[in-house]
Amino acid sequence: MNNTATATSSVGQKKLEDPLAYLPCSTIVEYRKGQNIQSQGLPSRGICLVLAGKVKVCRQADNGRQVVVDIYRPDEFFGESALLGLSQSTEVSMALEDTKVMTWTAEAIEEIATRTPQLAIALLQLFVQRAIEFTSRIESFSTDNIARRLVRALIRFSERLGHQTEDGSVQSMAFTHELLSQYVGTSREIVTHYMNQFRTQGYVRYSRRGTMVYTDALKEWLRQDTADKVGKSPLTDVPGADGDTDARAILSPAKARAAA
Amino acid sequence: MNNTATATSSVGQKKLEDPLAYLPCSTIVEYRKGQNIQSQGLPSRGICLVLAGKVKVCRQADNGRQVVVDIYRPDEFFGESALLGLSQSTEVSMALEDTKVMTWTAEAIEEIATRTPQLAIALLQLFVQRAIEFTSRIESFSTDNIARRLVRALIRFSERLGHQTEDGSVQSMAFTHELLSQYVGTSREIVTHYMNQFRTQGYVRYSRRGTMVYTDALKEWLRQDTADKVGKSPLTDVPGADGDTDARAILSPAKARAAA
Repeated sequence: MNNTATATSSVGQKKLEDPLAYLPCSTIVEYRKGQNIQSQGLPSRGICLVLAGKVKVCRQADNGRQVVVDIYRPDEFFGESALLGLSQSTEVSMALEDTKVMTWTAEAIEEIATRTPQLAIALLQLFVQRAIEFTSRIESFSTDNIARRLVRALIRFSERLGHQTEDGSVQSMAFTHELLSQYVGTSREIVTHYMNQFRTQGYVRYSRRGTMVYTDALKEWLRQDTADKVGKSPLTDVPGADGDTDARAILSPAKARAAA
Repeated sequence: MNNTATATSSVGQKKLEDPLAYLPCSTIVEYRKGQNIQSQGLPSRGICLVLAGKVKVCRQADNGRQVVVDIYRPDEFFGESALLGLSQSTEVSMALEDTKVMTWTAEAIEEIATRTPQLAIALLQLFVQRAIEFTSRIESFSTDNIARRLVRALIRFSERLGHQTEDGSVQSMAFTHELLSQYVGTSREIVTHYMNQFRTQGYVRYSRRGTMVYTDALKEWLRQDTADKVGKSPLTDVPGADGDTDARAILSPAKARAAA
């Protein structure tokens, strides 16, 4: 781990504090791909830092469906509800790959933060930022139809979890249609319907190495689609109420990839 | 303000720190009902504490629609994005009543927190809790139809902003259908449609004094509706895709209020 207290990460307009600069090492636990890290309703495992691999964090809805909160990558924290001292975790987390996690109890974090206030400020900035990202997703749920939510998910996961390739696409682990449906809030079948269209139109490719997403082309698609919709009456364009099989939203924008 | 360092608020299983116990007084600004406190795209006004009144915090979507993030009441904070030093606010805030707000710059908060780490821990717990509440709302957007989202909004706003009356209802400020639609993520017309049904069925009453909500009856309605839906195929029950005019979900549960 980085032990210098000067490390910062640049987000927005200001150098933010980096919690990793202030945290001493702690217990490391390894999980195999597919293994549960935290089960809902069980006592929290504490605040966790991904050292290697990827972790899917979900909530389990009343009706049994899983909702993906996010996917966390190395140097990112999850399990922060431990800081509230809840006796039961509100979340489920699972290793998406073979994963190494370092954990701290809430008491340990509070004790270190009392000695090193920069740690508390760094974590505060981190979770304020996370809360704002959640409100951005709430905005998307409130105003975007399923195609737009799926496009935003593909862009976000690619930028967070993938790497740029020579042909301009971003290559990531395979995004299963089930995973995407649990993030976008619809059925797997509807995700498959749209993903087939995106593939036909060249926005997405699958290979043995994972999912390749043309993120620039999809961002252009979002911009075109927004421009088409501005000024429309909310009643004729209620999010999620457009039948979800209407391909117009996908078919009408210029094929940005061809133009790119 | 409370200046004792022993004040705590109980949430979950643990006494959480109370930021108000550690914050010195700062500038107070008054806003008239309807006045903007923070405009989107302008420099942030800093971290704000509501002293009196109520504040609506929104995000403005690309298509111009407003999405309500939350309504904040006395002793609650908003404007936390100031802690990230963003040069432009991602939020709009407005006084829903005549309101008094105390503000601190991010630098002031960081300076106080460095001297008083308990403040940083208190704010950290607060924003972790807020982030978890946002994921709960994301879960609702992912799995609930509009009627259920509206019921959850009525319960939440009543419990946060209202007070119990003798007949078992919770009386709050008037929740306009526009406000509810901006929180639930649908059109005002669809909210009006459901609110008329809820009123006919006795779950909600309007008066000159505000909105009266039978929260216990609505919680029972949610439980019944969940029990009805468990086991249904996701394809036949896609959230937001149920036509949004199907009254079945409202009409079928036992009239919990009559039974209460």
